Amino acid sequence: MTDHTAFLATLAGIVGDPRHVIGPGGDFEPYVVDWRGRYHGKALAVVKPGSTQEVSDVVKACAAAGIAIVPQGGNTGMCGAATPLGERDMIVLRLDRLNKIRSVSRLGDSIAVDAGCILADIQKAADEIDRLFPLSLGAEGSCQIGGNLSTNAGGTAVLRYGTTRELALGLEVVLPDGEILDGMTALRKDSTGFDTKQLFIGAEGTLGIITGAVLKLFPKPRARAVSFAKLNSIDAVLDLLAQARTELGDRIGAFEVMSRGQIEVIAENLPLVNIPFELDTPWYVLIELVDTLASVDLNAALEALLSNAYERELVTDALVASSETQAAAFWKIRHSVSEGSKKAGYVISHDSAVPLSQQATFVTQVEKRIAAYRPDARIVMHGHIGDGNIHILAIIPGLEQNQKDQIQDTIRGINTIVDEETVALGGSISAEHGIGIANRERLARVTKPTELRLLRSVKQMLDPNDIMNPGKVLPA
Amino acid sequence: MTDHTAFLATLAGIVGDPRHVIGPGGDFEPYVVDWRGRYHGKALAVVKPGSTQEVSDVVKACAAAGIAIVPQGGNTGMCGAATPLGERDMIVLRLDRLNKIRSVSRLGDSIAVDAGCILADIQKAADEIDRLFPLSLGAEGSCQIGGNLSTNAGGTAVLRYGTTRELALGLEVVLPDGEILDGMTALRKDSTGFDTKQLFIGAEGTLGIITGAVLKLFPKPRARAVSFAKLNSIDAVLDLLAQARTELGDRIGAFEVMSRGQIEVIAENLPLVNIPFELDTPWYVLIELVDTLASVDLNAALEALLSNAYERELVTDALVASSETQAAAFWKIRHSVSEGSKKAGYVISHDSAVPLSQQATFVTQVEKRIAAYRPDARIVMHGHIGDGNIHILAIIPGLEQNQKDQIQDTIRGINTIVDEETVALGGSISAEHGIGIANRERLARVTKPTELRLLRSVKQMLDPNDIMNPGKVLPA
Repeated sequence: MTDHTAFLATLAGIVGDPRHVIGPGGDFEPYVVDWRGRYHGKALAVVKPGSTQEVSDVVKACAAAGIAIVPQGGNTGMCGAATPLGERDMIVLRLDRLNKIRSVSRLGDSIAVDAGCILADIQKAADEIDRLFPLSLGAEGSCQIGGNLSTNAGGTAVLRYGTTRELALGLEVVLPDGEILDGMTALRKDSTGFDTKQLFIGAEGTLGIITGAVLKLFPKPRARAVSFAKLNSIDAVLDLLAQARTELGDRIGAFEVMSRGQIEVIAENLPLVNIPFELDTPWYVLIELVDTLASVDLNAALEALLSNAYERELVTDALVASSETQAAAFWKIRHSVSEGSKKAGYVISHDSAVPLSQQATFVTQVEKRIAAYRPDARIVMHGHIGDGNIHILAIIPGLEQNQKDQIQDTIRGINTIVDEETVALGGSISAEHGIGIANRERLARVTKPTELRLLRSVKQMLDPNDIMNPGKVLPA
Repeated sequence: MTDHTAFLATLAGIVGDPRHVIGPGGDFEPYVVDWRGRYHGKALAVVKPGSTQEVSDVVKACAAAGIAIVPQGGNTGMCGAATPLGERDMIVLRLDRLNKIRSVSRLGDSIAVDAGCILADIQKAADEIDRLFPLSLGAEGSCQIGGNLSTNAGGTAVLRYGTTRELALGLEVVLPDGEILDGMTALRKDSTGFDTKQLFIGAEGTLGIITGAVLKLFPKPRARAVSFAKLNSIDAVLDLLAQARTELGDRIGAFEVMSRGQIEVIAENLPLVNIPFELDTPWYVLIELVDTLASVDLNAALEALLSNAYERELVTDALVASSETQAAAFWKIRHSVSEGSKKAGYVISHDSAVPLSQQATFVTQVEKRIAAYRPDARIVMHGHIGDGNIHILAIIPGLEQNQKDQIQDTIRGINTIVDEETVALGGSISAEHGIGIANRERLARVTKPTELRLLRSVKQMLDPNDIMNPGKVLPA
């Protein structure tokens, strides 16, 4: 075994204070296990640089020593991208100390941040100047924006505001050779050649380390309306969505779908969640409208949409929330899907997106094939259908989340079914969670050879010695 | 001189019909001169493949023969990117025959098109399913979407709908080795690694040839309101913009600014254009609101904004159009800036964008320096200020557009002033027109070395033999 004493001393010298390097004998646990507890890795050290320059210096030291780097934000990823795995010598590089809001501009509707800023802190800084940073997801209290950018995270506001990629105006990146790519621009328009920053968004730290970003802000909604509707088919759900888009445009803040089984799982396992209607149709939709103009009567607009849909027999019943309390109760159902499902058994979840025009075929086919393959699985669904992104869950009763080993074959079998149907319909196997290690082999299976070759060429160009997050995203 | 007979025969064989290859003795003029008449090139042949496969075959033939390729759409670019220039043997590859709308989906709010589709034809196809394709610019009757994507074109709707990049869901690209990268996806969310299609947007044909695209569609506005306001300073213009964003959000379809001098140039040279107010303030803003919800009273919303701004002394006077005719008359002024300016002399125009927070400093500094450098120049301004993109025009009286040779030094001097101020304020020297050949040396001057190195690495990776549009975008 190589002696890394000198290398560790170099790291300590760069970050200046021994507290910012965890070395042999330290508590590695929070940094080498992913938050779902599915991947357990090991690292030579965990280092926490305090500036972009220190990140650059750490990367240069690693490049010189041939030691790999796993960049880590809040360690809330779903696919193991931030876990140090494999036999190579590697360090975990935490961005925690890069946590400054650099500047915020109401005039420019933009905010410049360090990559280690917690998502919720960015939301708060925007709120303080009467603006909205719309990215919102379950982990927002602990995930970091660098991680959100690196996975091109989705969340609940994609339909209205786009994915994380679409929220990024500029990036600062430390490249695998330690050079700093300073693209902290707040420009809305820039037509000066191809846009290299795009490469680092969604790259999950395999091409460099995002250390800063300039992000778009938006005016805050001042009016809101929420409704719950019952529908008989996924086709009816899609028809309602198209009609809602036609009439209401971008004021549709959310258009979330749940299958009856999904709500039943919540009702059975979380008795405190109030379900204010009979579960007598197969599909349920939560629609939220938002508007910056306080004077627009959104309830009336929503009622007009839904009563028209009722007349056309698209919707069998609908409730428009008459108060903020009722609106919150509707959202409570949607926000309980994860907890409710986990209490029902081992959850094999998927994060596919297919074009909306293929959504009905997709849902029908996948459900039929999983039911045939594993008849005891409960197949339930929820998701951001406005984005084409339905999460299909196969829940295996009687097993807990930590009993993965007992159903490896089933997981593979069900993944294959979902992947096959996804790819056959022109979809993506990961709409918003990324690739990491979990989906790496699936990516290789479903990606066209020309595209895969190009992905590898980009990696080779930027990181010829493969020191940035090796083994992630791209299959071996 | 090399004999290219065999090569030309190969091209003819690929495209099948002699009409689709213009060779020696043919009329090259429409293809080797840019539309502003500033660049005159030469080519071995102009070839018009009829399918993506034929484009691929032509590229392979060129790669084998070491002959360069200049992809050309509608040849309406502003920077000479589509003109065959330089001493190398090259062909012009026209996309005209790839002009099919492949499919259109109201449900998915998307349209799949060949790259040679005329922009106006795409707008029309969207309109036929009650949807909007928002990209709109002066050349829309003849420019092709492949060219719009390749320059990441801006236009009048960026504030509301984003640049061309933000409108692209998927791309099909023929790579410099002739391989076809099939990314014709209609997905809204895809988090499977880095997004290679982004490289080709804005690359001006230097990395490959875009042959197809899937584009976003939007619901059509059903309500519209237009106003013209007079303001005393650029700070007031920006303050009004921020307030408009706060109250009205994304229903601001356009927020266009003109300087008094810009409108005076129109009034002097285009007497048929009606200017329905005194030119007694230095700045004028045209605001257009749009909404999908027909019942929203946009005139009232606009009046509320403007009367509040009047009380705060931001606006000295304002008119809200009371009819479609009056709205069209307001827009007529804005649409006359190009023609009016050209009649006033030789136009040295710029396409800078700076962050909105720097806009006031930018405008003041540039005007002062140009006035000192060339006192006889008329300095006028117009632009999409909501995007941070003001076009600064220095008009040299007594010279016509074809007398460029007489003022080469002045052009260089004024470019330098604008570039210096743009870069000092964190801006872009080309917000929406691209780089091509016109801005290539300027790009080299203002781009940071790390970024420039990365641009070159990407080019080298994808096109090691430099056959795709050589000499464009990247400086020698």
